[in-house]
Amino acid sequence: MTFEEARAQFPVLERCAYLNAGSNGPLPRAAVDAARARLERDLAEGRSGLAWVEEIGALRERIRAGIAAVLGTSADLVALTDSTTRGCQIVLSGLGLSADDEIVTTDQEHFGLIGPLHASGARVVVAEADEEALLAAVTPRTRLIAVSHVLWTTGRRLDLARLRPPDGPPLLVDGAQSAGAIPVDLAGADYYTVSAQKWLCSVDQSGALFVRDPERWQVALPGMYAQQSHAPDGSFVPKDGARRFDSGWMGGPLLAGLEAALGVHPEWRYDGAAAAAARCRTLLEPLVEVVTPAGHSTLVAFHPSGSPTELVATLAERGVVVREIPGRNLVRASCGWWTSDDDVQRLADGVLAG
Amino acid sequence: MTFEEARAQFPVLERCAYLNAGSNGPLPRAAVDAARARLERDLAEGRSGLAWVEEIGALRERIRAGIAAVLGTSADLVALTDSTTRGCQIVLSGLGLSADDEIVTTDQEHFGLIGPLHASGARVVVAEADEEALLAAVTPRTRLIAVSHVLWTTGRRLDLARLRPPDGPPLLVDGAQSAGAIPVDLAGADYYTVSAQKWLCSVDQSGALFVRDPERWQVALPGMYAQQSHAPDGSFVPKDGARRFDSGWMGGPLLAGLEAALGVHPEWRYDGAAAAAARCRTLLEPLVEVVTPAGHSTLVAFHPSGSPTELVATLAERGVVVREIPGRNLVRASCGWWTSDDDVQRLADGVLAG
Repeated sequence: MTFEEARAQFPVLERCAYLNAGSNGPLPRAAVDAARARLERDLAEGRSGLAWVEEIGALRERIRAGIAAVLGTSADLVALTDSTTRGCQIVLSGLGLSADDEIVTTDQEHFGLIGPLHASGARVVVAEADEEALLAAVTPRTRLIAVSHVLWTTGRRLDLARLRPPDGPPLLVDGAQSAGAIPVDLAGADYYTVSAQKWLCSVDQSGALFVRDPERWQVALPGMYAQQSHAPDGSFVPKDGARRFDSGWMGGPLLAGLEAALGVHPEWRYDGAAAAAARCRTLLEPLVEVVTPAGHSTLVAFHPSGSPTELVATLAERGVVVREIPGRNLVRASCGWWTSDDDVQRLADGVLAG
Repeated sequence: MTFEEARAQFPVLERCAYLNAGSNGPLPRAAVDAARARLERDLAEGRSGLAWVEEIGALRERIRAGIAAVLGTSADLVALTDSTTRGCQIVLSGLGLSADDEIVTTDQEHFGLIGPLHASGARVVVAEADEEALLAAVTPRTRLIAVSHVLWTTGRRLDLARLRPPDGPPLLVDGAQSAGAIPVDLAGADYYTVSAQKWLCSVDQSGALFVRDPERWQVALPGMYAQQSHAPDGSFVPKDGARRFDSGWMGGPLLAGLEAALGVHPEWRYDGAAAAAARCRTLLEPLVEVVTPAGHSTLVAFHPSGSPTELVATLAERGVVVREIPGRNLVRASCGWWTSDDDVQRLADGVLAG
């Protein structure tokens, strides 16, 4: 697939320099067509019947395999969820933590992760967002380290293998800014979340959760798909592997859109995205203070010279879509394998003018 | 709106006698058109920007008000969820139950309710599905009564006010087979779930949760929409009212489809559905053992003379869509305000022939 072919899949790119896959990826026409076709099917034929149920089940398994391929793991270790937040809730609810326990996290995390950490009842210990500071915060009470692979604020990538020594606490990784954006090595992760609507360019409410030892953990948020059989008191025989952590029903249109989205990337996805991010920072570095370490991710976050809110608004008027990271004086550009030289040049021109 | 106009909104009804809204409602053309329009918008314009975020927020609030109207309550007491299962998880996770606590439920509940009951860690006490047996099972250890308003198996309706004396334990109600099907009086309910894809005919993954005293309960599964502000350790100031229990992100296409679905019902929705169910049972009673008490709900469940699996299959061949309730030797027909005399006659003809 050439760059032009890869890029032509996304109509939004004809309209603007769309640099916000870190919030939501550009949608490929194939994903929207697939979702529409399922909507039309459900409209005409109804959402019922053995064949329909089997189609939905087969779609789920193909998607599970597709996400496992993105993560370089087995489909048996992948649960389907509706978001990274849900993945974090599933993990935290199953750990049975109390106020005597501690969780170590960084000071750069999204509420989708730290909200569930707090709700677990454990004491949340906030460290600086580097490996050394995180490991220094571990005590005998630490039951979990929970961090993003790529920080949604600064775009820094953390070294998962270093954060998970063999004798260390389990590691929960928020993969919202990494899965589909950079090559993922799960070696350090006990749990790893995926937000499919971001770097995998899926339609909304789709995601996944990798669980290394699914049989070891409690299924605290069981949905219909968690069980093979159950008794009238709700006790149940869980499905094999990580399927027991599936977060619940997903409609046919969503599943069809997600499956199609998993098929649109070129083989050079990671090299292409890394090159686009490198080009972006090269253009921005003379103009603003870039905070993302070089080569870490597909995000380029920077301190603007004026108000980040105003810069995002003036860029939007020029057809350049980026976002502000609230409360941190940061503007963040997201570069994908679909990002052109012209996209990042338009950003740089807008930053210079703004 | 005449019956013909009301019915003409659902293309699937031209194709078959669709009698399975208890699984998934027939989809109205307006809901699919609205979802499609949002998909096309997101494809062309991207899922980003202040205007887009505000549109999504406004859609959520209009839907909240629409569901509050269905339940006869205030929007401030309604959380938006993706399913009844999620609503049950949200409630149970927030109660902080242990093995010393008891929950009383019926022997006729769906896994979407009893799965979360079991996962709460409390002892689940299973009683017969009538008000007297349920109240007799209450002990000083009972922390919750959790039942369906209309049982998904037999179609029996329970008397919520009777199940919730002022000095009794809180009452969690699974409203999957009632909200949108029968008039709902929340007087007895502390929590009440809604499955929008069933009797409200919405597109998939949508629902709601009524919470009578939202400030009283812990937000144990916080999503992005739960908080007004938060600290780096995840501690947060919850939104006012039941919004703190919103289950998370819902995409624009889903929200648009749900909003449109909330607008398609005629004023005579409940009378129409009750009349269709009454007609259905009148036709079936001479042929099979109907187990649904007369006048209770829009479900008509019956013991077939032969195999329920085979009957459902032979009915499907005749274009009559009903479902089996597994393990209970029951076939269940769902009658809505869109159901015609011809639909139920075709069912009766098929039962007689099958």
